[in-house]
Amino acid sequence: MDIIRILGIDPGLRKTGWGLVAVEGTKLSYVASGVIQSDGDLDLALRLKQLHDGLTAIVRDFTPDEVSVEETFVNKDAQATLKLGHARAMALLVPALAGLPVAEYGANQVKKTVVGVGHAEKAQVAAMVRALLPKANPKSADAADALAIAIAHAHHRKARTLKAALLGA
Amino acid sequence: MDIIRILGIDPGLRKTGWGLVAVEGTKLSYVASGVIQSDGDLDLALRLKQLHDGLTAIVRDFTPDEVSVEETFVNKDAQATLKLGHARAMALLVPALAGLPVAEYGANQVKKTVVGVGHAEKAQVAAMVRALLPKANPKSADAADALAIAIAHAHHRKARTLKAALLGA
Repeated sequence: MDIIRILGIDPGLRKTGWGLVAVEGTKLSYVASGVIQSDGDLDLALRLKQLHDGLTAIVRDFTPDEVSVEETFVNKDAQATLKLGHARAMALLVPALAGLPVAEYGANQVKKTVVGVGHAEKAQVAAMVRALLPKANPKSADAADALAIAIAHAHHRKARTLKAALLGA
Repeated sequence: MDIIRILGIDPGLRKTGWGLVAVEGTKLSYVASGVIQSDGDLDLALRLKQLHDGLTAIVRDFTPDEVSVEETFVNKDAQATLKLGHARAMALLVPALAGLPVAEYGANQVKKTVVGVGHAEKAQVAAMVRALLPKANPKSADAADALAIAIAHAHHRKARTLKAALLGA
């Protein structure tokens, strides 16, 4: 059976979390995870280049088949929303430049898939990630979130493939 | 005297305007301008790739020395702010990847420099761009705005260079 490698990305300007899982049928396994940081003392253009270069290296080194990115939570702080938009653009652009399909999931959809409820706490998400991927030892909350985003795509892509098969597509 | 080529960018997800001017001492001249469009039917990741590819081609073909990007107007529509953040990230990233310095100017700063007042109308900006660059015939408001952003940098970089020279830097 084919093994599919999924890269999950939790975008942020200061810290962008990433996590890679492998899917073989119904079996899910941990590959790697980490955080890309940008230097707050630099100009915005150079910080975006740092995120771009970090994500480009991960796509090159870990050769994912598909990418899953969290949809941005739009809050009332417009400046924070704008910053997140800049960082998230890197998470979408880098896989697109590599010709990889990019799926997007809302934060509540990720929690609902991984924990079972849409308004789970961060600690619950991290606990479920550790339960589903026993070999994972994500060093930060951003890396754990990125793994949860990859897991969410692993579940939903299966349902989509099954639906396509049932419909004879 | 050295000729400096400045690329101005007015970022937008649907349309990103660009305009190139050459500065030789106090003399300003028009080089080129246009608009890069993204296809609204495509996924966001692919639309960002279109903007990235378009800007990369312009930087490669017109070899600017410096780049000037408009600061985003943060409004109350958070979704619109987020979209603009994604598009603006391309305008900052592409020159950074090419090793070019990127300056940022607020919309009011651009208007104040080009027209003389911070709250000028779009038509006044376009008229001043035509007066300052008689050979320019920008085909759209986005291209005219991008030329205004380039002109703003042409003025401010001179002041910065003069200040550095006076301070013996």
